[in-house]
Amino acid sequence: MAQRHLDPTDPTAGAVTGDALAAYLRAQATEFLRALRLHRETGGGAASGAEGSVDAARALRRSARRVSGSLHTFRPLLDPAWSEEIRPELAWLSGTLGLEHAYEARLERLLLALHRLSGTALFPAQAAQAEADGAPRAATAATENGGGPARTAVPERGNLTVGAAKAGALLERQLTLARTRAHSTALQALGSARFHAVADKVAVLASEVPLTPAAPGTGLRPLAAAAEERLTDAVTALPLLTAGHPYNAEALVHGLSADPSPHPQDGPWHQVRLLLRLHRYAREVLNGGDAPADGRLLAAGRALNRHRDASEAAGAAAQAARTPRIAPATAYALGVLHADQRHEVEAARFAFQQAWQLQTVDAP
Amino acid sequence: MAQRHLDPTDPTAGAVTGDALAAYLRAQATEFLRALRLHRETGGGAASGAEGSVDAARALRRSARRVSGSLHTFRPLLDPAWSEEIRPELAWLSGTLGLEHAYEARLERLLLALHRLSGTALFPAQAAQAEADGAPRAATAATENGGGPARTAVPERGNLTVGAAKAGALLERQLTLARTRAHSTALQALGSARFHAVADKVAVLASEVPLTPAAPGTGLRPLAAAAEERLTDAVTALPLLTAGHPYNAEALVHGLSADPSPHPQDGPWHQVRLLLRLHRYAREVLNGGDAPADGRLLAAGRALNRHRDASEAAGAAAQAARTPRIAPATAYALGVLHADQRHEVEAARFAFQQAWQLQTVDAP
Repeated sequence: MAQRHLDPTDPTAGAVTGDALAAYLRAQATEFLRALRLHRETGGGAASGAEGSVDAARALRRSARRVSGSLHTFRPLLDPAWSEEIRPELAWLSGTLGLEHAYEARLERLLLALHRLSGTALFPAQAAQAEADGAPRAATAATENGGGPARTAVPERGNLTVGAAKAGALLERQLTLARTRAHSTALQALGSARFHAVADKVAVLASEVPLTPAAPGTGLRPLAAAAEERLTDAVTALPLLTAGHPYNAEALVHGLSADPSPHPQDGPWHQVRLLLRLHRYAREVLNGGDAPADGRLLAAGRALNRHRDASEAAGAAAQAARTPRIAPATAYALGVLHADQRHEVEAARFAFQQAWQLQTVDAP
Repeated sequence: MAQRHLDPTDPTAGAVTGDALAAYLRAQATEFLRALRLHRETGGGAASGAEGSVDAARALRRSARRVSGSLHTFRPLLDPAWSEEIRPELAWLSGTLGLEHAYEARLERLLLALHRLSGTALFPAQAAQAEADGAPRAATAATENGGGPARTAVPERGNLTVGAAKAGALLERQLTLARTRAHSTALQALGSARFHAVADKVAVLASEVPLTPAAPGTGLRPLAAAAEERLTDAVTALPLLTAGHPYNAEALVHGLSADPSPHPQDGPWHQVRLLLRLHRYAREVLNGGDAPADGRLLAAGRALNRHRDASEAAGAAAQAARTPRIAPATAYALGVLHADQRHEVEAARFAFQQAWQLQTVDAP
């Protein structure tokens, strides 16, 4: 916490050096250990989806991502052997822990979309969430329903057509299976020797950061600026002109293509999402962990999260449609659902373009 | 042609009376008779889709709509018995003559969409047409293809997936059958006693318009203003606020609904399309047939035509998906296609909202 006395909102407040990086990494390592303790106390996820355990896993991933991202951005200031050893392990960990939640969220997104497409109501908490995410989509349905649980609630399937109901049941079966497998994998991972080795390394990091000898006197700003430059370069390469024209229909161009692989056009957007995250973490490091909230950066990040989620949900709908021996009505509903999620992808790109346009580039 | 000496661009150029209406109706009746002669000379549509015959049928419908619309707007100035007799007959005629072309255009729209969704090229003439209609959709594919016939060209089906190809073949079968039936019906209509009665009435109209005794001295502006007011009232009732938010997902809200009837939400937009047409014809009457082109009015009208076309194409895709014993891959492709056309509906509403927003209401 050595750098906390710097005014975090004043970019001219003198040099921020490797000491600030060390403080940030120590703080994140401490967060990681606290989340790990919490995770063990709440039963370590023995019961899938238990509230405390879910929060703990999220906190674990959160700090793992921050440590890993900072090691990447400020690589020259850290012992390279140590850094190259721990980074892939942290990536493995947050990837493994994130999968269960991703499948759960994907299923919820697809079932909500099926209900929206059927003109049936959804739960207000979910509608409110959708609106908070910048999606005006659920607006009309939001006021129609009186109450209902928020987190684990899956919309009831009363008023769906046969096709939509069957499509929902098929997706529920496939994604629940995937989620259950991801849950077991995560449990195994948390009990593995590999995980204990990571946890030990993070425990050491909480007290002692392996900086290079020159690091304490080296400024962080050039490295943070390089991270931001990688972000702006990647954004410049995006087709933002097209994205800024509503209803450009780009996102569905390969909606019926014979190629079953993920949309190649989504790749650059996913990449920008990761670079935006690295830029955000670098800002946190420079500001002693308390980066002032940048609304536009947040909006851009939210749009890219929505882009990723919709892209993967569209893929799941297309994938489900390849299940052998499904009824034509089911396949039809999955086709509508796929196209709907691809339009969500397009809508997210539009939202990103709008947010980015407003963005004044603030040099870190 | 009595009113031609008035400056058509000057709204203060004195009273425009029933005489102007009579001149307009005589001119439109003459157009009708000329188109009818052309239609007979070009073979009367014996060969479906012959160029001259198609143009002649379009010209017939064009003048029938204008006569019928003017009789409606300026009803109090015309002999009511005559007017009430001829209007439904003109509506029957233009409806019957328009159906063949509508099925043809619908098929072309759906096949183009299937190709766009498959990421395959389309013919440049068609792409150019799509762009001229204000649709940025085909932009990427437009430059990919070197040549090809414009009118009767149906895109080749080389690179489609099995599902898209089968969906295209199914739509082609169903819509070609419908078009062939519409063609026979139109031929029968043109040879019927009913048609000859209409043609005779129009021939009389070309020389003598049955105005009421007071009409020659009665101003047209109040009636034209009432037509415009009906239009603006109907536009005010549209959900333009929603339509102005891109990607509002309203048009797909009932995309999977169990109700197979046409989208009720489309009705008010179709109604505005008709009222906009009546307003345009009334402006023509006031301006002696040469209404100055109003770009914004044209853009709004184009958006509403696109709205109607996409709405009907989406319905045709949904209808085709109800064909018994189709393969799941076909049904899936039709689902994607349906959703795509519903998004075209939404895009058209957005385009209308944008055009209308710019519109300065000019009192006729």
